[in-house]
Amino acid sequence: DEEASGADTSGVLDPDSVTPTYSAMCPFGCHCHLRVVQCSDLGLKSVPKEISPDTTLLDLQNNDISELRKDDFKGLQHLYALVLVNNKISKIHEKAFSPLRKLQKLYISKNHLVEIPPNLPSSLVELRIHDNRIRKVPKGVFSGLRNMNCIEMGGNPLENSGFEPGAFDGLKLNYLRISEAKLTGIPKDLPETLNELHLDHNKIQAIELEDLLRYSKLYRLGLGHNQIRMIENGSLSFLPTLRELHLDNNKLARVPSGLPDLKLLQVVYLHSNNITKVGVNDFCPMGFGVKRAYYNGISLFNNPVPYWEVQPATFRCVTDRLAIQFGNYKK
Amino acid sequence: DEEASGADTSGVLDPDSVTPTYSAMCPFGCHCHLRVVQCSDLGLKSVPKEISPDTTLLDLQNNDISELRKDDFKGLQHLYALVLVNNKISKIHEKAFSPLRKLQKLYISKNHLVEIPPNLPSSLVELRIHDNRIRKVPKGVFSGLRNMNCIEMGGNPLENSGFEPGAFDGLKLNYLRISEAKLTGIPKDLPETLNELHLDHNKIQAIELEDLLRYSKLYRLGLGHNQIRMIENGSLSFLPTLRELHLDNNKLARVPSGLPDLKLLQVVYLHSNNITKVGVNDFCPMGFGVKRAYYNGISLFNNPVPYWEVQPATFRCVTDRLAIQFGNYKK
Repeated sequence: DEEASGADTSGVLDPDSVTPTYSAMCPFGCHCHLRVVQCSDLGLKSVPKEISPDTTLLDLQNNDISELRKDDFKGLQHLYALVLVNNKISKIHEKAFSPLRKLQKLYISKNHLVEIPPNLPSSLVELRIHDNRIRKVPKGVFSGLRNMNCIEMGGNPLENSGFEPGAFDGLKLNYLRISEAKLTGIPKDLPETLNELHLDHNKIQAIELEDLLRYSKLYRLGLGHNQIRMIENGSLSFLPTLRELHLDNNKLARVPSGLPDLKLLQVVYLHSNNITKVGVNDFCPMGFGVKRAYYNGISLFNNPVPYWEVQPATFRCVTDRLAIQFGNYKK
Repeated sequence: DEEASGADTSGVLDPDSVTPTYSAMCPFGCHCHLRVVQCSDLGLKSVPKEISPDTTLLDLQNNDISELRKDDFKGLQHLYALVLVNNKISKIHEKAFSPLRKLQKLYISKNHLVEIPPNLPSSLVELRIHDNRIRKVPKGVFSGLRNMNCIEMGGNPLENSGFEPGAFDGLKLNYLRISEAKLTGIPKDLPETLNELHLDHNKIQAIELEDLLRYSKLYRLGLGHNQIRMIENGSLSFLPTLRELHLDNNKLARVPSGLPDLKLLQVVYLHSNNITKVGVNDFCPMGFGVKRAYYNGISLFNNPVPYWEVQPATFRCVTDRLAIQFGNYKK
């Protein structure tokens, strides 16, 4: 019966022929199923070897990997997503990602990186590198990444000076988030293609006239949790397609000017500021001829404005009463 | 030109008709792309509302969510994977998962759960609930989960007594990991269908004769980093298809008996034990007639055995010299 059980003539049993479902190409402790190699929470100190070449998703989250070496991803040309979140990676060999010709998602948040990894695969669509130690974004680090559409690089010690001019050249991003960093102003030279820009939880002081000039395709702008005292008149006029504007938790004394002219703006968060006065034409266009979308969300709570002094007509172009979060009930 | 710009006659502009690519159904700050809603690292305190019903993957990793409420996932009947890793979830409404009729992957590791969430969707294939505060696995908690094939529940304060008899009834698992817990022995009543069982980093003292009786389909058994002094003779004989056995970092004084009869066993880790003697027939079958797979990995380093006393014939059924990690070079 040994013949039947797959033993070859040399007296050695071929294990894989005996039970076909078992594939040796699965690092010990990982769970390998339908080209997904799931190796999270294993205390791994390095990228394991036996990863099958047809793997499309490799999850190495929550391990103790400190370095990505030259051959760590050798042969993984079908990899679509690589998750390295919550490790201790501080060093990446410049050729480590070269084999990954089809990689679209690289999640490498919560590590010890001091720079954006060089030589990112040109196939990359999304990079999440939140919560690392990156201070500088040098010119050309993103060059050649024609498919990239989303970068999340919040939680890094990035100052405005950390962005070299031309750092984002060639990128056609639609989403960029640089939150929880050390920005004191809106960075220059970001891609003009941006639909969403999130700069919340920084130290931005003001928005000057030309700051938003380049970003005319924005739908959403997140500036909450900054120190914005002043938004120069006219600076918002460069954002004709803006839908949602978050300016909560800043130091604004007035509703920023220009909102009525932003025809598609529907949500404005202004809560937790220093607004002492709300003018009757601060939100809605004067007169009747002007076509405009209805607001469906305005927040003004936690501002020192006496709400009984605000005239109802101020909200004439708001869908309904529920859309306004007013009154100082949330200290 | 207002007509052309999508404004209806009521004087209100329909934003979505003006720029079709913009979809309002994307929670602020999240990145929504090809039915993937990516909301990690946003400091969210609860599951956001506007999640599009056709979403297949929802990533809420690394936020501050403390509770899953009844309607949090309402309408998400196409959801395939839900990632809630690294939040503060301690409460889950018993109906929270009911809408998720197609959910296959639930990653809810690194939270504050004290029990396995009840009413898990019957579609579930993989549950990762590592690093929570679960002490008990009651009978029936997994009932009805016919598609489940992988559970990772390591990093929980689970003792053997925490498993109610019948806790795993009805489950046809092939992978189970209960590492970094408080087990002092191999749990009883685990599913007989298991191909991989990982119980590393526990306090298991011994393996008695019947402990492995049920698990005859095991390919891989991980028992590293325990306190195993004794493996009763014959206890490994119940594992005819075993390929890989990790017993490193234990307190074994001898190579466990029965290895030669495990015809498909190819990797045995015994490093960092108290092995003082290695017998010539500890690994390979006596005589020549017996067919057996070659070993391609044996580790014996960090054991008090004088390796010069070990006869070369001991490794007669090992592929080559490199396959043996011997000698006490790794203190």
